[in-house]
Amino acid sequence: MKQMQIYAFDMNCVSHINHGMWTHPRDTSLQYTDLDYWVDFARTAERGKLDGIFLADVVGVYDVYKGSAAPVIETGAQIPVNDPLMPISAMAYATRHLGFGVTANTTYEAPYLLARRMSTLDHLTKGRIGWNIVTGYLDSAARAMGFEKLPEHDARYDAAEEYLEILYKLWEGSWDDDAVLADRARAIFADASKVRAVRHNGTYYKMEGIHLAQPSPQRTPLLFQAGSSARGQDFAARHAECVFIATPNPQAARPIVGALRCKAEAFGRGANALRVLGLITIVVGRSEKEARDKLEDYRRHASVEASLAHYSASTGVDFSKYSLDEPIEQRSTNANQSALAAITKEASKPVTLRGIIDQMVLGSRMRPIVGSAEQVADRLAEWVSDAGVDGFNLARTVAPESLRDFVDLVVPVLQERRLFKADYAEGPLRQKLFGGRGRLPSSHPAAAFRT
Amino acid sequence: MKQMQIYAFDMNCVSHINHGMWTHPRDTSLQYTDLDYWVDFARTAERGKLDGIFLADVVGVYDVYKGSAAPVIETGAQIPVNDPLMPISAMAYATRHLGFGVTANTTYEAPYLLARRMSTLDHLTKGRIGWNIVTGYLDSAARAMGFEKLPEHDARYDAAEEYLEILYKLWEGSWDDDAVLADRARAIFADASKVRAVRHNGTYYKMEGIHLAQPSPQRTPLLFQAGSSARGQDFAARHAECVFIATPNPQAARPIVGALRCKAEAFGRGANALRVLGLITIVVGRSEKEARDKLEDYRRHASVEASLAHYSASTGVDFSKYSLDEPIEQRSTNANQSALAAITKEASKPVTLRGIIDQMVLGSRMRPIVGSAEQVADRLAEWVSDAGVDGFNLARTVAPESLRDFVDLVVPVLQERRLFKADYAEGPLRQKLFGGRGRLPSSHPAAAFRT
Repeated sequence: MKQMQIYAFDMNCVSHINHGMWTHPRDTSLQYTDLDYWVDFARTAERGKLDGIFLADVVGVYDVYKGSAAPVIETGAQIPVNDPLMPISAMAYATRHLGFGVTANTTYEAPYLLARRMSTLDHLTKGRIGWNIVTGYLDSAARAMGFEKLPEHDARYDAAEEYLEILYKLWEGSWDDDAVLADRARAIFADASKVRAVRHNGTYYKMEGIHLAQPSPQRTPLLFQAGSSARGQDFAARHAECVFIATPNPQAARPIVGALRCKAEAFGRGANALRVLGLITIVVGRSEKEARDKLEDYRRHASVEASLAHYSASTGVDFSKYSLDEPIEQRSTNANQSALAAITKEASKPVTLRGIIDQMVLGSRMRPIVGSAEQVADRLAEWVSDAGVDGFNLARTVAPESLRDFVDLVVPVLQERRLFKADYAEGPLRQKLFGGRGRLPSSHPAAAFRT
Repeated sequence: MKQMQIYAFDMNCVSHINHGMWTHPRDTSLQYTDLDYWVDFARTAERGKLDGIFLADVVGVYDVYKGSAAPVIETGAQIPVNDPLMPISAMAYATRHLGFGVTANTTYEAPYLLARRMSTLDHLTKGRIGWNIVTGYLDSAARAMGFEKLPEHDARYDAAEEYLEILYKLWEGSWDDDAVLADRARAIFADASKVRAVRHNGTYYKMEGIHLAQPSPQRTPLLFQAGSSARGQDFAARHAECVFIATPNPQAARPIVGALRCKAEAFGRGANALRVLGLITIVVGRSEKEARDKLEDYRRHASVEASLAHYSASTGVDFSKYSLDEPIEQRSTNANQSALAAITKEASKPVTLRGIIDQMVLGSRMRPIVGSAEQVADRLAEWVSDAGVDGFNLARTVAPESLRDFVDLVVPVLQERRLFKADYAEGPLRQKLFGGRGRLPSSHPAAAFRT
């Protein structure tokens, strides 16, 4: 069986996925403003040989539920949310192999500046940076950024295609590999004939300039994406190297994984071009009983209110407008075209608020995997074979306890079963995951912009 | 005599101010892509009790000289140039008191995102972040950012005034001091009635949104500025707390310092509201002879070509078009309205290319202070009394040697003479410099946006 890839999922905020856990007496996520918190997190992940940490980000605030931001402000649900790029260099300095998947938004970040930011991080981390490409889905963000309203869902992806083209030109085409000479004796830093301005004149963007950064270990950072709509899946299959999916169980994941791989092959990238990571929550103990006791302890802190506010924003549906047993109709919104469709499609009976709340065991819609290390390892192996995923993105519960538990209890079992690597491979993040030299393969669309 | 404030000036690039020094065999600035380089830099600065490091940044490339970017690419003169914010958290993790003045551009960075980035850094550094406000002056940057051309000089400042108003609203007005409760027992993170959306509807910007970050130690980061035009000086006197000036000698600095303090007083901020820092280069040895020998060694590596290319971009004048002894007329450009005026005004005879080149001892237009530690201390004390500055921004020559020399040789002499602090004060950066609690005083324009 192939070895799993495992990332620790987090966000530069108090309450990320499993809402309310910050109120647990052992939880430390109120310290998210301290570098010690982040360095400890990174060191724990590297101690467990995790492939990386994956930092989500959302520009804007969830104000769909009850038509107000108050529920998320009161529960700390992804607000406040600090910039995910800022703690990276401290974590990189404290680790040697750990990868960093960080989220940045194409709708709001200027492409020329984001290109440099990512190149800078790729240099400073010695090729350990990944970029999770998001296009945004919140009206609150659009207003804060000075737009009248959020661009339409598909237009966001059209613009993102152009955005990526600019970035590929800058990362792959502006500086040749042998442009930098750093020749002290002849006092020549670089051969100017091997550095060129890139030009773009498109529907959404135009620009002309040389990339401000010299080639970094990976040039283009490892590309992550999490699009779940049909358009989002196309985008992911064309561009992404790691795709992050969120489904309630492996059965629901399987067709998505299949579609992604199929599309990647259709784009000429090969079926092996994608690593698909499933979002999971784990509660593990030294015995099944200890795990179940821990779950009971944790769940007393879960916040249904925060979870509903989060889910309302994800789907664009204000769940506060429904009574507990009223059927919730399926529909498409500009926020996330598939999130609500996915649950209503899966459901064998009409979806109701009561049904949604019943799912929210730990303050999210995700049912946790609970058990001893061996039981958790069994479930992860099942996930891989049933869903066809390549690995996992671990949502935190009580931090840093949940990551420490995973590293101390589950990782050794996975390693013993050879389901997880005993040690890191050398080289940049992309090389660790895909072999090669750390650069994008020639089958990736970015390769067209090399000179 | 008052104590000096001293910053180490640098940029995330190979060749910053004194061009060509990277070719010296002992120089390590080619390693600017390594975190070790930056952490070592920060630790050295903190060992010397320096108030902070000050990181310049330029978006764009210098292509005025010879109508081409080739001269700066060949000499590594501020190109490549990596993002200055990315190494901050690693440096902050390795130090405890050192301040970080970092440059970000109001013309190109989205205000809502920059506000969050700075707040995040202020949190992670525990209140040690400063922002050097620049508006940009390069056409190459405007084209790379998708503008037809650079906005006019004064319009850039008008837009920057609005930009600051948005940031002040977000930093000072969006979250009350007592908004965050972090109350685990009641499961209330924040009191939503004490968090409010800010609104701006101006000529250049409009937006509506709550600040994404909870209040950081300083709220508004310590504000740096370096405007040298009349409009730039007005802006600095209104907003800045530390102003960075670049003049060839203390006599040229004096009227600028006087004008700045006078304007700050006229704006109701008091004469003590500004710390003015002069840009200087120091070559120090254990004896005068050792310093002079070091200067001779260094100057063999100076790049006149890089320095002319840099100076052409600063002034908007292509010096390659002049023969050595042809008079260079004074004129105003859209780049920097005063840079050329300053040198032509000072000059007693017509300015020529030969005269400019003769000034470029170490690859910049700045004549270095050269001598033993005692002699350097004498000169610094003279600078303070003749120019009325509060301290200095130290340009590097051969790195890290020039900073280490300053810390090991000059700092102890300054401390002995009580011209420099023996140790850091406690608290956030603003508190260290101005006393108080680290927040802006009520006389600052940002205070108007508090609730």
